[in-house]
Amino acid sequence: MNKLMQLLAVITLIISANANASWFGSDDKPAAKQDNKVYSLKLAETWPSNFPIFGDTTKNFKQLAESMSNGRLKIRIDSKNKHKSALGIFDFVKSGQYDLGHSGSYYWKGKDINTLFFTSMPFGMTTSEQHAWFEYGGGQQLMDKVYAKHGMKSIIGGSTGNQMGGWFQKEINSIEDLQGLKMRIPGFAGEIMAEVGAKPTNVPAGELYTALDRGTIDALEWVGPSLDLRMGFHKVAPYYYTGWHEPGTELQFLINLKKYNSLPADLQSILTAAMKLSAYQMYVQSEHESAKNWSTMKKDFPNIKVKTFPKSVFDALKIANEKLLAELAAKNPLSKEIIQSQASYLKKARAWSAISDQAYLNSQSK
Amino acid sequence: MNKLMQLLAVITLIISANANASWFGSDDKPAAKQDNKVYSLKLAETWPSNFPIFGDTTKNFKQLAESMSNGRLKIRIDSKNKHKSALGIFDFVKSGQYDLGHSGSYYWKGKDINTLFFTSMPFGMTTSEQHAWFEYGGGQQLMDKVYAKHGMKSIIGGSTGNQMGGWFQKEINSIEDLQGLKMRIPGFAGEIMAEVGAKPTNVPAGELYTALDRGTIDALEWVGPSLDLRMGFHKVAPYYYTGWHEPGTELQFLINLKKYNSLPADLQSILTAAMKLSAYQMYVQSEHESAKNWSTMKKDFPNIKVKTFPKSVFDALKIANEKLLAELAAKNPLSKEIIQSQASYLKKARAWSAISDQAYLNSQSK
Repeated sequence: MNKLMQLLAVITLIISANANASWFGSDDKPAAKQDNKVYSLKLAETWPSNFPIFGDTTKNFKQLAESMSNGRLKIRIDSKNKHKSALGIFDFVKSGQYDLGHSGSYYWKGKDINTLFFTSMPFGMTTSEQHAWFEYGGGQQLMDKVYAKHGMKSIIGGSTGNQMGGWFQKEINSIEDLQGLKMRIPGFAGEIMAEVGAKPTNVPAGELYTALDRGTIDALEWVGPSLDLRMGFHKVAPYYYTGWHEPGTELQFLINLKKYNSLPADLQSILTAAMKLSAYQMYVQSEHESAKNWSTMKKDFPNIKVKTFPKSVFDALKIANEKLLAELAAKNPLSKEIIQSQASYLKKARAWSAISDQAYLNSQSK
Repeated sequence: MNKLMQLLAVITLIISANANASWFGSDDKPAAKQDNKVYSLKLAETWPSNFPIFGDTTKNFKQLAESMSNGRLKIRIDSKNKHKSALGIFDFVKSGQYDLGHSGSYYWKGKDINTLFFTSMPFGMTTSEQHAWFEYGGGQQLMDKVYAKHGMKSIIGGSTGNQMGGWFQKEINSIEDLQGLKMRIPGFAGEIMAEVGAKPTNVPAGELYTALDRGTIDALEWVGPSLDLRMGFHKVAPYYYTGWHEPGTELQFLINLKKYNSLPADLQSILTAAMKLSAYQMYVQSEHESAKNWSTMKKDFPNIKVKTFPKSVFDALKIANEKLLAELAAKNPLSKEIIQSQASYLKKARAWSAISDQAYLNSQSK
């Protein structure tokens, strides 16, 4: 190296060392050196393209993450139409084929029974009660324990609010009315219904309207007015039952932990904050859409009859629920820990709900 | 300039041009050029240092904003102890003496009557209903209209949840029982109480316990178990009334608009997202603390009697409420617009609450 090149090398070092300090000017002293890389992350969602509310949530997440990171995070969302596997999200993110996912934890109970508990449980917590359990009642820690085994982290992904009990062709006045009742009600709630004599029936979403109209099934649950309106069930079934089986359905964001750990700390913060904020905003949007759509339904179909199961039916369903939970607890110590954590949190949270929102709403509806 | 210096200048330009591109390496193509300045923002809050929940919210906001910006945002929080003016926040932020504030919108009704409507209104929306109004029912746009006049932006700052009606020394069985009742109940709810014959009485926070104990006042409202427990009111009054006057009290973040507009777009996104996320998290924390503290109160003082005003009392209070709202609407067209927006949104949102959370909670408490 000749003298000139040595000098240039020294100057280059000086410029380089200063490039992230006073070089750019500053109100104060300079921030930590900014990483300038673009991190491209792929997210797979269970939902088809442009699915309302759920799909808006991943779009909100993408917009938040990209704008807050000034383009250093780039999120590509692949819907079901693209990856062709609505229920492949867990494996996609676990294997690293996708970095992120948006789905529902209870879909994975066949892979790991303990994923069942982080969406919504029959006779369980409302959305605000469950959010408190996740953040302050040990829920997130338990979810971390379950998902860490699979090399993933799960973060709240947005609540649908209290789901309606569903659309029925006939009134349910006693447990006898559930005997042999063919109902589309998947998952753990379906197992409870089977325990008391109903016949949970699997029907693809696209065929539900026709099945309910033609009597192939006697009843079905979907979500609530927010997503039921477009399905048209109110045109073919007279009874709309209030909810009990998913009182605060929370979706999930999934993150591949290896990928997450490879990101700079500021982008990790942005990623999880964008997930949580879009999750809370989904609950707000769900409440809005349900209010708006319920108003439309009532106006266009004033004969819809809103019903609630009688106490005798709930009592039977609760006995079945307790039996199935006890079986799960007996089989798996972590299941037992989660079930106990939820039951004990619900008790305290519900005592507060009773004297706050419930007492207020009741006093104002008299 | 000699030849060597010219050469150095050219090299410097080349290095500078490349400093934000391939220089740092990249997964993909480089992000937009990152601004490296530190922006120091000062936030004034109404609360004293380390005030629970409310003060945690500004700490959460600071932590989120600083970590997501990798230190490019630096937030200094001044509590009441420092700036000495709990109710000076509006003027601090309007004048630019502080960049940000954390307070309650209804404190500013003497400065601009239309700030009254963005905290919680008697017989108004619950927290989830009001969040939906802010985000999807035109609430944020109306709040923007009100605050833009003062060169500020207001963002949701966290909900206390449904506030309890307060601690009473005697039962309220009829509107006669409110005649001459000395009660600490500030603001618009206090005006309603005065309309029906009660005597709203101003007592500094630090003297409330003694005033209630010695009979200087007959009743008081504070927040709910989340913040009432530490005040000890349950030790000196037997009746805890359920709420009606602040069904979903939302605090506010204030931003000086000129300062906000001077920030880079990514830091604007980070700032508002950190505010909204810490606001939603405050609601979650409030629900948790209320559940926990209500459990403690009931255990230590099993004789606390939870009561709800009878319908005849609510009817009289509602007539007074409607009268005062009509007076506000008649005086100010923007007040009228906000009052109508809230009333019409509440009607739709409440019809949904009735068949979702309310129906579920009622069916499960039978």
